[in-house]
Amino acid sequence: MTLRLYDLAGAEPDRRFSPYCWRIRLALAHKNLAVETIPWRFTDKAAIAASGQGLVPVLVDGDKWIADSWTIANYLEDTYRDAPSLFGGAAARSLTRHYSSLADSLVAAIFPFIALDILHRVADRDRDYFRTTREQRVGKPLEAFVADRESRLAAFRASLAPLRATLKAQPFLGGDEPLYADYAVFGPMQWARCISPFVLLEEGDPVRLWRDRLLDRFGGLARKALAYDA
Amino acid sequence: MTLRLYDLAGAEPDRRFSPYCWRIRLALAHKNLAVETIPWRFTDKAAIAASGQGLVPVLVDGDKWIADSWTIANYLEDTYRDAPSLFGGAAARSLTRHYSSLADSLVAAIFPFIALDILHRVADRDRDYFRTTREQRVGKPLEAFVADRESRLAAFRASLAPLRATLKAQPFLGGDEPLYADYAVFGPMQWARCISPFVLLEEGDPVRLWRDRLLDRFGGLARKALAYDA
Repeated sequence: MTLRLYDLAGAEPDRRFSPYCWRIRLALAHKNLAVETIPWRFTDKAAIAASGQGLVPVLVDGDKWIADSWTIANYLEDTYRDAPSLFGGAAARSLTRHYSSLADSLVAAIFPFIALDILHRVADRDRDYFRTTREQRVGKPLEAFVADRESRLAAFRASLAPLRATLKAQPFLGGDEPLYADYAVFGPMQWARCISPFVLLEEGDPVRLWRDRLLDRFGGLARKALAYDA
Repeated sequence: MTLRLYDLAGAEPDRRFSPYCWRIRLALAHKNLAVETIPWRFTDKAAIAASGQGLVPVLVDGDKWIADSWTIANYLEDTYRDAPSLFGGAAARSLTRHYSSLADSLVAAIFPFIALDILHRVADRDRDYFRTTREQRVGKPLEAFVADRESRLAAFRASLAPLRATLKAQPFLGGDEPLYADYAVFGPMQWARCISPFVLLEEGDPVRLWRDRLLDRFGGLARKALAYDA
C-alpha cells in the first residue's frame, strides 16, 4: 500500500513549504519509498485528527498515523530495515537528534526574514490563523517583525559559520553521501526557497552549494518543487 | 610506550584549561589509554616544533607527533581499534565532525566572558603573547572586550537552546553513553570552568547537568582538575 503524507501547501496546492515535511520527503526518497503527498493547510485540523494532534508532517502507513518528523524518521528506519539507513547505525541515530534541534533553531533564525512572505502565500482560509498564531508567538505584527531584514542578513549568514566550516571539509553532514541529518537541516533552507523570493544564502557559500547538492538528489525532487530561485 | 600529551597550563602547572586539550584528555580516557600530560605554555613553541606547528594539543605516540584535536581523535580511533570507539561507526564519524565545528563556535561565544580571567591566570611569560594575539583577533583591549558580561549572559544561555533541547531528550549527545561528540562540546565548558570563576551555566540547566555527568566520567577525571566550581 502506498504511503501517504499530509504536506503543508500554500494558496497554490503545489507550493509545498513546510521545513518539517521537506525533511520527510527526502527521507522517504532516501528509503526508496513511494509516497502520495496530500496538500494540507494549517486549518485542516480535522483531516489529520487521527494522528492525535494538529501539525504536519503526518504519515499514514496502512492503518498507522504517525506525526512529528523525528518520530516519523525513526518509524521509517525501524519499519523499512532493508532500505538504505537514514541514520547510519545506532550511535549515528543518537548523534542525529541534535541535528533536529539545530534545524529547529534554524527555522527560528530564518522566520524573521520570511514571515510576511509566508502570510502572503498561504491559502485564504489560513491567513487569519497564520497571522494570529505567529504574532502571538513573536509578540509583534509580522510587518514589524520582518522590518529591516536586509540589515540583519549579514548576522544571519555569520551564524551559519559552524555549518559552513563542516561543509567545507566534507560534501554532506553525513559524509560523502547525505543522511537524515542533512535532510533535517536542509528543510529550513527549502522552506525559505519555496515560500520567499528573499535570497538568504550568498552565491558560492559552501552552505548554499550543499543545499544545491541536495536539491539535485533523488532526480531533483526538491529542485523541481514550486520555488523562487528555480 | 606511554602516550604523551602537551597540555596547555596556566601559571600553576596543574591549571589545565585548553578546550581542545580537554576533549583529547577525555578521548584518551574513553579509549582506556594512559597518558602522561606535559604542562605547556603558549610561548613554548620550541617544545612542540616536531609537530610542525605551534598549538596544542600535540600527542606523541612513539616517534609520531600528531597535532590538531580532530586529527588526533581520528588517529586514536584508527590506531587503537580494539578500544571502545570514539565515534560509533563510519557514518557517526562523519556526523561527529560538525560537533567539532559547533564546539569552535562555542569557544568563540564563551571567550567574551572569560578573556580577562585567562589573561590573569596564564604564566607570566605568556601574558604579553596572550594579550597581543587576542587583542589583535578581537580588535579591542581585553578589558573592553569582556565589559558588561553580566548583561550578555542571558543571550549566551539562550544560544544554547538547541543543545538544551537535545540534552533534555537524551543523557549524552552520543545517546545513553558519551562519544567524542560529547567531549568536543564539553571542552569549551571545561575551559571556562578551569580558568574563570564566572558562572556561565545556571544550576538545573540540562546543559549543566550534562556537563556534570561528563565531569564524573572516568573516575572524575575532569571534575578533579584545578577549577573554580570544585
